[in-house]
Amino acid sequence: MSQLGLLPRRAWASLLSQLLRPPCASCTGTVRCRSQDQESLQVAEPVLTSQLKPHQEKPNFIIKTPKGTRDLSPQQVLVREKILDLVVSCFKRHGAKGLDTPAFELKEILTEKYGEDSGLIYDLKDQGGELLSLRYDLTVPFARYLAMHKVKKMKRYQVGKVWRRESPAIVQGRYREFCQCDFDIAGQFDPMIPDAECLKIICEILNGLQLGDFHIKVSDRRIMDGMFAVCGVPESKFRAIGSSIDKLDKMSWKEVRHEMVAKKGLAPEVADRIGEYVQCHGGVSLVEQMFQDPRLTQSKQALEGLGDLKLLFEYLTSFGIAEKVSFDLSLARGLDYYTGVIYEAVLLQTPAQARDEPLNVGSVAAGGRYDGLVGMFDPKGHKVPCVGLSIGVERIFYIVEQRMKTSGEKVRTTETQVFVATPQKNFLLERMKLITELWDAGIKAEMLCKNNPKLLTQLHYCENMGIPLVVIIGEQELKEGIIKLRSVASREEVAIKRENLVVEIQKRLSES
Amino acid sequence: MSQLGLLPRRAWASLLSQLLRPPCASCTGTVRCRSQDQESLQVAEPVLTSQLKPHQEKPNFIIKTPKGTRDLSPQQVLVREKILDLVVSCFKRHGAKGLDTPAFELKEILTEKYGEDSGLIYDLKDQGGELLSLRYDLTVPFARYLAMHKVKKMKRYQVGKVWRRESPAIVQGRYREFCQCDFDIAGQFDPMIPDAECLKIICEILNGLQLGDFHIKVSDRRIMDGMFAVCGVPESKFRAIGSSIDKLDKMSWKEVRHEMVAKKGLAPEVADRIGEYVQCHGGVSLVEQMFQDPRLTQSKQALEGLGDLKLLFEYLTSFGIAEKVSFDLSLARGLDYYTGVIYEAVLLQTPAQARDEPLNVGSVAAGGRYDGLVGMFDPKGHKVPCVGLSIGVERIFYIVEQRMKTSGEKVRTTETQVFVATPQKNFLLERMKLITELWDAGIKAEMLCKNNPKLLTQLHYCENMGIPLVVIIGEQELKEGIIKLRSVASREEVAIKRENLVVEIQKRLSES
Repeated sequence: MSQLGLLPRRAWASLLSQLLRPPCASCTGTVRCRSQDQESLQVAEPVLTSQLKPHQEKPNFIIKTPKGTRDLSPQQVLVREKILDLVVSCFKRHGAKGLDTPAFELKEILTEKYGEDSGLIYDLKDQGGELLSLRYDLTVPFARYLAMHKVKKMKRYQVGKVWRRESPAIVQGRYREFCQCDFDIAGQFDPMIPDAECLKIICEILNGLQLGDFHIKVSDRRIMDGMFAVCGVPESKFRAIGSSIDKLDKMSWKEVRHEMVAKKGLAPEVADRIGEYVQCHGGVSLVEQMFQDPRLTQSKQALEGLGDLKLLFEYLTSFGIAEKVSFDLSLARGLDYYTGVIYEAVLLQTPAQARDEPLNVGSVAAGGRYDGLVGMFDPKGHKVPCVGLSIGVERIFYIVEQRMKTSGEKVRTTETQVFVATPQKNFLLERMKLITELWDAGIKAEMLCKNNPKLLTQLHYCENMGIPLVVIIGEQELKEGIIKLRSVASREEVAIKRENLVVEIQKRLSES
Repeated sequence: MSQLGLLPRRAWASLLSQLLRPPCASCTGTVRCRSQDQESLQVAEPVLTSQLKPHQEKPNFIIKTPKGTRDLSPQQVLVREKILDLVVSCFKRHGAKGLDTPAFELKEILTEKYGEDSGLIYDLKDQGGELLSLRYDLTVPFARYLAMHKVKKMKRYQVGKVWRRESPAIVQGRYREFCQCDFDIAGQFDPMIPDAECLKIICEILNGLQLGDFHIKVSDRRIMDGMFAVCGVPESKFRAIGSSIDKLDKMSWKEVRHEMVAKKGLAPEVADRIGEYVQCHGGVSLVEQMFQDPRLTQSKQALEGLGDLKLLFEYLTSFGIAEKVSFDLSLARGLDYYTGVIYEAVLLQTPAQARDEPLNVGSVAAGGRYDGLVGMFDPKGHKVPCVGLSIGVERIFYIVEQRMKTSGEKVRTTETQVFVATPQKNFLLERMKLITELWDAGIKAEMLCKNNPKLLTQLHYCENMGIPLVVIIGEQELKEGIIKLRSVASREEVAIKRENLVVEIQKRLSES
């Protein structure tokens, strides 16, 4: 069904197994140290290394990446590429177009969009000119793009880094710099059809990634707000109480109730009324049940939300994913801009898995409807309804890392197909001519950057790097117009005509 | 030879031709405006749109991207993807591994690495904690990575955005946020072998991109510094005079001489001596000529550089690219960290091209050797010699945009293969079931997000979007267990059994 889906499970697992290895060097061969040569210069002229000021040659500070960020090693880059390929190919399967926006936006663009989290935005220093902030997500820039370019309809995906000054809990796969993969549908369509497609996409991606069973919680901002209203929450407290509710996946109801009453000043009886609702979750039958709820049905907004959820479940049944989705009144989602349906996907663990390698990574995909955001950027307030989703790829990387910790299979981080070797001294130029033929034919090829490497060193390099084929050229071969082609695995060598080299290699590579 | 090389020229030109079109909407179909629905709510409860504060609904500032930055439309993203694919596949063909580093670094990491350009670094606001700056290139972070992880040898590539607060000259394809594609070889190897491979890579990429003829200027920091020394430039003025020399591709020698004498206080006779050298360019014969130069050969450093250049030209001949490269004493390169060979590739225009669409985009690829940079990050000053290159992909995008301005061929920005249509009312659920079969089989499919779209609207959508196949389902087809499959181009329709649908579509797609 998907690119990764086509890989045998074992190959996929094997590919991922390298994740936790430390970054390692890739090239071998060393003879002359250029820097030593430079240092030993007999200086009859000024020491001409002004570009390397002596006092700068040793740093007087700790060399590290900024707090909450990290380098990705070649192994990690490889795994990330495979995961992103799968995600993007799903977005494209659903007809999405790619978009790219700058890493930073005018500070005003991001202001008052993220509720309690606004303090986590990275600002740039005022160096004269505009006040700028690093983007906090890909949704607000997308809405800004739609308004700025007057785009009324668009199915788009975007993959990119975003930045949040959170207290880093790296152990849970959370970073201050992380990658987001977003898919959104902007435009006025018939109700819940794009919303259902977003849930279908989440299912396709999580199935394709083979992360095990998962579950999607669905609710609606209008139902939550309606519930707050009929329970007696003052409107000014809606977002604050919503934030407390949002913690129910990490805290017990008792703790959340305490926070609402003691810290946020909610009347205890109001909290208890809310408690009756937020502990409910189920399928479409819970939607039906809520339609009968004498209190909730006093809210016209809640009724609207319930009506849409009913329709949504009908569509999810046609998409074959209804059993993956439940209506969950405890789902709140922190961001200010949601206006309708909201959802969040979490991975499920079997009891055995939870015992062996307990996962606590929060949601791996989430999103919702935000019909008002684009209008906030339009000079005339024209609205463009939107619904979308974001895949938590960093958390998925983390889960894969955890899962693969025990596996030790070797995965290649280079794609080299052929190595050019010689048993002869002073054969560098011949190796260069030969490898040029290969490169120019599109064949992935390497040789050692040494004048006179030993044959054994060259063959060991191939074994270590997993390069399948070796081309060997020496004086004798040159004279006879042939080349030796060696299979690293079987150690078999055959002589072939020099002019057939590229064709023969391409034949072998296509067979393997 | 390369992915794009395999594309027929026409397809490649066609692909690029869309670059200059404005972003356009992608989805059709509209019935109910959800936002209007919301506005018309009969409010028996508080207006529950607190997440959209009324005073925020219309922005009181101009909606734009920050100065010197831009959004990339789907067409531009598509072209960028193709260009980056070609570049990265060349890097991989040469055995490089991928690496990723954070968008920002500790401010100290970037300090005193970029000479006169250091003022162009974007700093982040001090929000408590570390002082951070956005990366200015990918080279310094790579050197920091090598030192921090104690990597002594590595062939790596990295693609990513970098940021520079330059006065934007967008007309020339220069932005404050732009993408870099870097390839570097770190480690101690025999002289000039990795350096020659870098030049080979530049040639492969520029050939693969079919941008027309090009030329690579080569020099060496040691030759330049030696030349300055023997001409009588005080050592304290080396970098400043180097910066003036660097402008010789945009200014005449007379203007550069004036700058050096009047602004930088160089003695006129010293300037004239420099003038004799920097106006020289040629092939390996110029290297030989300089070996006979009585003044230049007084510098041991210059002799070292000339010796390496001679070796380099020998290797370039074996790689078949010597005729693309010239020794050019006017090449200076602005960055502080270079210590040896430096190079810069420029596109050449035929006289006719220069008249029709004069290009002024500076270099499209550049790089050099920097043997001291990693040592600046190592606590003990241990050096790791490095050489690398950067492809100026933004400039390449710009050139492609200019070249394609006149072409008007249509290029698809989505990859949708099949459209699911119905002539019937109330057939949404059946369309959903059918499209689910396609998606789950990995087929790229779309349908309109409307309850009852007209058949003509659906077929027009396919024609507009370039979708080749339509699956049509109606009451009659459902009853008979068949499906109609329509070719959009030929308008031919055939009836096929429902259960053969996926196989039949896959067969057709593999044939086309």
